[in-house]
Amino acid sequence: MGVINSNRTAERRRQILDAALVCFQENRIHGTAMSTICEKAGMSPGHLYHYFSSKVDLIEAIAEEDSQIAERNIAALVKKGHVVEELVRGMERVWKRGQGIHGALNAEVLAEAARNERVSKIIRQRNGRIRSLLAKTLEEAQERGEVAPDMDPLGTASLLIAMTDGLSAAHDAHTGIDLKRATAATRRFLERSLRPDHS
Amino acid sequence: MGVINSNRTAERRRQILDAALVCFQENRIHGTAMSTICEKAGMSPGHLYHYFSSKVDLIEAIAEEDSQIAERNIAALVKKGHVVEELVRGMERVWKRGQGIHGALNAEVLAEAARNERVSKIIRQRNGRIRSLLAKTLEEAQERGEVAPDMDPLGTASLLIAMTDGLSAAHDAHTGIDLKRATAATRRFLERSLRPDHS
Repeated sequence: MGVINSNRTAERRRQILDAALVCFQENRIHGTAMSTICEKAGMSPGHLYHYFSSKVDLIEAIAEEDSQIAERNIAALVKKGHVVEELVRGMERVWKRGQGIHGALNAEVLAEAARNERVSKIIRQRNGRIRSLLAKTLEEAQERGEVAPDMDPLGTASLLIAMTDGLSAAHDAHTGIDLKRATAATRRFLERSLRPDHS
Repeated sequence: MGVINSNRTAERRRQILDAALVCFQENRIHGTAMSTICEKAGMSPGHLYHYFSSKVDLIEAIAEEDSQIAERNIAALVKKGHVVEELVRGMERVWKRGQGIHGALNAEVLAEAARNERVSKIIRQRNGRIRSLLAKTLEEAQERGEVAPDMDPLGTASLLIAMTDGLSAAHDAHTGIDLKRATAATRRFLERSLRPDHS
């Protein structure tokens, strides 16, 4: 009974989040009314407010989900055991498709964070978690000799996350980029900065 | 007479753009009405519309100004003659203060670009101009032996611009970053990727 209820809750939340993602991408966060999300999700306001009481609640849930996706991606880096190569491939995917906060919404959520203290806090917490995890991953790769011993894991993690945000925004804002050359330059950057010398 | 008129025009435009920048930062682009900008600039709507007929016109002028600032910054790189060191210092400034579209407005304009085809075109043109100029600068530095001969100027220029956007957004969205370690990691990245070997 409890399991059925919690499955149903998860399903309803999913349904609402999917509707919100579509609305935010169509009309921006600022231009989307909760009533539009209700309509898109096919739910009454009373029903929807039972799950999410505001747009900020929705953004929080979207950022949380995004964080889980990023954490899974980083965990996958470790399993494959070739951290530099997997980082390069991850950055190549970002160049090609955008990513973070489910792709195209990233710049939108960052803009919201610049104006709304609660969203800003959510994003900072998300980035903090991802930064720690990535730093730990780099440190372990360093211990295995995959990464240069004089690289600072925490500083590098901060840089890599900021790069990911920039590349993700570039996907929208910089068309006209030669993606092949940009990804090759990114590979060169990561390999030369991260790999141990003479490897 | 012509000079006086054109000085007065420049002064009025400046006055309006400054008012718009303040309004956009306070209430976001989407949340700012032209009437609010009129109020802030102390002008009648009829007077203001004589200079800018829409918010997109204002964003266009702001992006244009931003582009000129970036072009001046890149031109300054060349004059100083130590391109890698100047790029490192430029990136350090971005980490510390944010930059692009007059600082805090960057994420906001990128979000607008993701939703508005005309803004997107303006930003793409701006980025295209900056990319060409930066690529040319890197190529010349390569000819002088300041930059590794196997570095691709155009791909690297794309990467550096995207990095700048990411670092600039990080300034808002990633507080909790250890700036000293992040800037040191950025220095390492740029130096190891750009400098010729054995330099």
